[in-house]
This record gives sequence, C-alpha cells and structure tokens, in this order.
Amino acid sequence: MSHVLDDLFETLKGRKSADPETSYSAKLFAGGTPLIARKVGEEAVETSIAALTEDNAAVVKESADVLYHLSALWAHMDIAPDDVWRELRRREGTSGIEEKNSRKT
Amino acid sequence: MSHVLDDLFETLKGRKSADPETSYSAKLFAGGTPLIARKVGEEAVETSIAALTEDNAAVVKESADVLYHLSALWAHMDIAPDDVWRELRRREGTSGIEEKNSRKT
Amino acid sequence: MSHVLDDLFETLKGRKSADPETSYSAKLFAGGTPLIARKVGEEAVETSIAALTEDNAAVVKESADVLYHLSALWAHMDIAPDDVWRELRRREGTSGIEEKNSRKT
Amino acid sequence: MSHVLDDLFETLKGRKSADPETSYSAKLFAGGTPLIARKVGEEAVETSIAALTEDNAAVVKESADVLYHLSALWAHMDIAPDDVWRELRRREGTSGIEEKNSRKT
Repeated sequence: MSHVLDDLFETLKGRKSADPETSYSAKLFAGGTPLIARKVGEEAVETSIAALTEDNAAVVKESADVLYHLSALWAHMDIAPDDVWRELRRREGTSGIEEKNSRKT
Repeated sequence: MSHVLDDLFETLKGRKSADPETSYSAKLFAGGTPLIARKVGEEAVETSIAALTEDNAAVVKESADVLYHLSALWAHMDIAPDDVWRELRRREGTSGIEEKNSRKT
Repeated sequence: MSHVLDDLFETLKGRKSADPETSYSAKLFAGGTPLIARKVGEEAVETSIAALTEDNAAVVKESADVLYHLSALWAHMDIAPDDVWRELRRREGTSGIEEKNSRKT
Repeated sequence: MSHVLDDLFETLKGRKSADPETSYSAKLFAGGTPLIARKVGEEAVETSIAALTEDNAAVVKESADVLYHLSALWAHMDIAPDDVWRELRRREGTSGIEEKNSRKT
C-alpha cells in the first residue's frame, strides 16, 4: 500500500484544475504561492502552540495541516515528493551534529 | 520498503537517550518542547521564504527540515506517526471545502 | 503627544476586563497566551509574505497587526512597553555586529 | 524626546549604505527582503515560544528583536514608520470587534 503522503500528493495534483468554488485545495491553488506559503507558516505556528500547551491531539491535527499544505506547495511548484524523501534519506546516512553542519554549509 | 518518514521516526526515537554532545537530534531532545517547537516554526518560515523566492531546490531542503523537526516533535511527545497518517486518511475521504469546514469546527 | 504604541497599550489594558462578546481585544485576552502568541506568529508570517510579494500597503497593515497583537501580549503578561523601549535603547548604544553578538551570548 | 522606534528607524536608514562586514544591520540589508522577512518571522516565533514558557524577560528581548527587524524591513522597503502609526491611530477610533471586521474586509 502506498504511503498516505504520496496518495495525498496525487489527489492534490488532480485538484490543480478543479473549480475553486467546490474544493478547498483548488481554492488554495487559485491563491498561488503567497496563499499556500502563508498557510504552511501559520499551521506550523499552530503546531508549535499546540506542542507548548501539551495538547497531543491538537499536535496530531495541526501536524496533519502542515503536511497537507506542504504537499499542496509541492504540487503547486511542481516539486516531486520523491525529491524530499531522497533529501531525507541522504541525511539519514550521516549522524546528528555532522548532518546539521553539512546542511548549514 | 518502509517510508523514509517512518524510518526517520525510528531513528529519532533511538536518539532520545543519546549524548547531546554527539548528536544534533539528542541536542534537540535535550532542549525539549520549546526548542523543537521553535525549530518547527522557523523551518516553516524558511520554507515559505524559499517558495516565494521561487527557489525549488531550497523548498526541497527546507521541507525536509520541517519534516525532520516535526518528526522529532512527535518522538519527543510520544506521538505515533500512524496517528498523523490516520488523521490524513480520514480527511482524504471528504472533499475539499467540506473537509476544511469540518477541520475548523 | 504620546506615541500611538503607548496609547494602544493603555487602551488594551483597559479592555482586559471587557466583555469578550463586544470587543476583539477582550476576546483575545479571553483566549489567553496561546491565542495571543499564535496571532503574533501568524501576523508576522503574513508580514513576511506581504514583503516578498512587494506589496508595501499590505506590509503597513500587517505590521500594524503584529504591533497590535504584540501590545496585547505585553498587556496580558503584565509587561510594560517601557521595558521593551529600554531594551532597544540599550542596544542602540552598541554597533551592529557587536550588538548582535552580545544579544546571542 | 522622540520615541525609540523612530530613532531606531533613522539609525537603520543610515546603515543602508554601510559595509556589511562591520554592521549587523548592513548585513541584513545586503541579504535583502528574503533575509529580513525571514528574521521577522523567526523572531515572532521565538516571542511566541517565550510567551508560552512564561518567561517575561525573554518576551521583552524577543519583542525587541521583532521590532528591530520590522523596522529594518520598513527601512529596506522605504516604508515610513508614520504610515504604520497612522494605520494604528485609524483603527483606535473603532472599537474591538468592529475594528477587526473592518480590517478583514
């Protein structure tokens, strides 16, 4: 079975041409990068707040919101999720501190 | 083969007891929720900026940073990634606008 | 004439005991730190987006939103704006790079 | 005596032509809108975190960081602080809920 994030991405791609009146995703795409990027930032802030108030159920929901809008951003910018998975695999080969250093340079 | 995000989560869980001096992940866990939540927010802001400057390669890297720190937050708060995947599956059954409305109430 | 930010703070303090039904500010205070802190983060994200889309009029409005919610946060936490002005004056005496370094240590 | 935020803005304007090697502010301007907008977002996230950990001293410092980078953004985009003060005065004439509604439309 494929991973939910890969399925979500395929669903989102299919909504790029949908009517903004009938689909939240299509409305997002109509708003373009400024709207989707704003939502990514805002949902991450909400995840942080939920974490600091120690509300695990809210962290689950807000994390899902972050992942949803991040996937929409990839679909909008024609970024393949595989590119992100590959980036994560690449880093996994390196240990903690090293990895962070390599990322920053 | 398991998904990189599930593998990453397992790796992160294993580092919860590692020495903060030798692993970036262990350093994160030592900083606790305030540090990890801050990183989630900051990396999302960087993703937004990368998107608005139309730098696809940077969006891939910053997205990976968001996912890494989000996974660390789950590991730290004992949230199972499966709970987040389930939340995303649940929403997938509902269409766009409806789904957003259901989320907000 | 006093500065608008000091006037705003006095107005906000006065609304701490107002009915949440009739005043947006009172509604904010009712939501407490999690709500006000979330708004500070979200309005800052919106300011960043407005800046990157080069919409000066929107930056003015979103900056006002940030300042409004920041002032509400101070009022809620019993922080005097003078403490923030003093912190800014203190830094002004030091030059750029130095100042940043002193802040970080 | 003029307000510290107006003084800070004048100082920042004067650093727009300074050497990035010697001044943190000049380094910010060299990074342009993407760097300054990122800092505004990140410092706001740090303010939120400080608020939720109930660290008043940190909220004062992080608030000063937000105001500093917001002022730098205005200087970089040739926005006059007076435009922001005017926007805040304009809203002050209207009461809470009304004001929020008027802002959103």
